Formats: sequence, C-alpha cells, structure tokens
Amino acid sequence: MIKAALSVLLVLVAISSAFGKYIPKTGKRIPQTLSRGWGDQLIWAQTYEEGLYWSRSKNKPLMVIFHLQDCPHSQSLKKAMADDVEIQKTLDEEFIVLNLMYETTDKHLSPDGQYVPRILFVDPSMTVRADISGRYSNRLYAYEPTDLKLLVTNMKKAKKLLKSEL
Amino acid sequence: MIKAALSVLLVLVAISSAFGKYIPKTGKRIPQTLSRGWGDQLIWAQTYEEGLYWSRSKNKPLMVIFHLQDCPHSQSLKKAMADDVEIQKTLDEEFIVLNLMYETTDKHLSPDGQYVPRILFVDPSMTVRADISGRYSNRLYAYEPTDLKLLVTNMKKAKKLLKSEL
Repeated sequence: MIKAALSVLLVLVAISSAFGKYIPKTGKRIPQTLSRGWGDQLIWAQTYEEGLYWSRSKNKPLMVIFHLQDCPHSQSLKKAMADDVEIQKTLDEEFIVLNLMYETTDKHLSPDGQYVPRILFVDPSMTVRADISGRYSNRLYAYEPTDLKLLVTNMKKAKKLLKSEL
Repeated sequence: MIKAALSVLLVLVAISSAFGKYIPKTGKRIPQTLSRGWGDQLIWAQTYEEGLYWSRSKNKPLMVIFHLQDCPHSQSLKKAMADDVEIQKTLDEEFIVLNLMYETTDKHLSPDGQYVPRILFVDPSMTVRADISGRYSNRLYAYEPTDLKLLVTNMKKAKKLLKSEL
C-alpha cells in the first residue's frame, strides 16, 4: 500500500516537473553560448564594457572579434581559429576575448569602417591598437583563414603592452 | 591487409582529433550560456545595443536584468523567474530580453543607482521606462522572488507602448 502510494507520488512529481518547464511552441532550443563557435573552452566577455574591465584588472590585452552568423568569411575564419590549438591556448591564457555581432557605440572600434570579420586589439590602458592590422589595405582589420600566422604575429604585438613600451 | 591499414588509419584519425582540440590546463569547461540561468529557452540579446536593435525592429519592449553570480538576491530571483512558466512564455513571445553582469555606459539604465538585482524596461522608442518600478522606495527597480505578481503587472505596463499611448 505504501509502495503504491509512493509510486503514484513519484509519477505525480515526474509529471509536474515535466510540465514545470517552459518549452517554446517551436520546440526546445539549444541554449545560446557566448563563444558562438569561436572557442567553446575560452572564457568570453559578454560586452565591451566587461572586456575592458577584465583587460584592465588582469592586465591582459583584449581581442574583439566582429562577425556575423550568415557571413561565409566570418564562418571560415571562425572555424580556422577555433581549430587552431595554439591560438586557442594563447587566447585563453594571455588575452581577454570578446566576440560581437552588433557594433558598439565606440567609434574607436571601427577605425576604417564597420565590416566583418574584423579583429581589433585593445591595450589594458584602454587604447584601441589601430596600429595592429592585417594584410588588406582596404580593410585593415580583416583576416582570412590563410592569415593565421599574421594573426599570431599581431597577437604577439598586442602582448607588448603600451605602458611597457614607454 | 587493407583492413589492417584502415584500422591504423582510423586510430590515427581518432588520435589526431583528440589532440586537435584545445583543453585548458584546469580541465574542460562547460561553455558559458547567454541565459546564465535566467531562462535557457529564451533568445537573449548579448549587448544593450543588440537589445535596442531587436526592440525597435520587432516593436517589442526590452527587459534588462542586472545581476551578479555571487549575489544571493540575484540567485533567488533568477530561480523564481526561470521556474515561472508564464513569465518565461510571456518574455519569449512578447519581449526582447537581456541580462547583464556589468553596467553599461548609459546612465538612463540606473535612474536611482547601480545595484543588483535590478530590472528596467525599455520601450521600442528607446525610452527607458523609469516609471515602471517595484515596491521598494529605496531601490525602485529591485524585485524579490515574492514580487513576481507585481513583475507580471509591470510587464503588462511595459507592453503598452509609449507610441500607442499618445
């Protein structure tokens, strides 16, 4: 008798917990990640303000990646960077990282316009390193998957903090 | 012979793919979500700029939640809101949502100071609805888990868009 009552209770608990969660009409969704595929193992800042805060307090340069989900150039650069163990390791240990699909109000992050993909480095002193650019003169901060070596070189430049250069 | 070669190949592929992923020294991490526990089934804006963009283009009010991971009041409000199917459904279908752990540079989002938890509504016309407040006179935009009814009332107020009130 007690067993039966317990079984009923268990079933009721199971039902109520199944009904107790909101599920969208269009079906259950996979929760969005902050990495958006640019490196699931990295700790991403959510906003530019948060990135600047961490950059200053940890004294590490900030890498800001502007991208769009439906841009094939963003997609291919993302795959190349996410698959590059050395880049991921360096970013994880020596950088603060932020990826954005929407522009910020800070004009310093678009020195030669708003396009994607575009990578800007920011010094812990909160100075945007407009001097660190890629190989394309018409889009100074664009990188292609074949430019990862140059990107690594630029990451090394960003690691030389402005303060220590004085 | 071909089978043996294939096996070796398979093993090599398995090894290289296991070595091909970056894993932090401290061990594999669970990817961060944008919901941060405030509703895994909702589609969260990443930044305030993105929230304003979606609010304007979908003509839906924006709910901005300020919180901190190690604040017990934020934690308990988060649990209450995440477990409330009606609130989750309304937020999903009728609001744009954003949760932030870092303050923005926009002073309008802290009409009576920066504290957590704090919930502000923004009209699609980009006006912060400072008129929609909770029950605490010293912290106008704070809510406790017992205030969910008031929060639902306030969500209804936010749904009456400023434009349509003219």
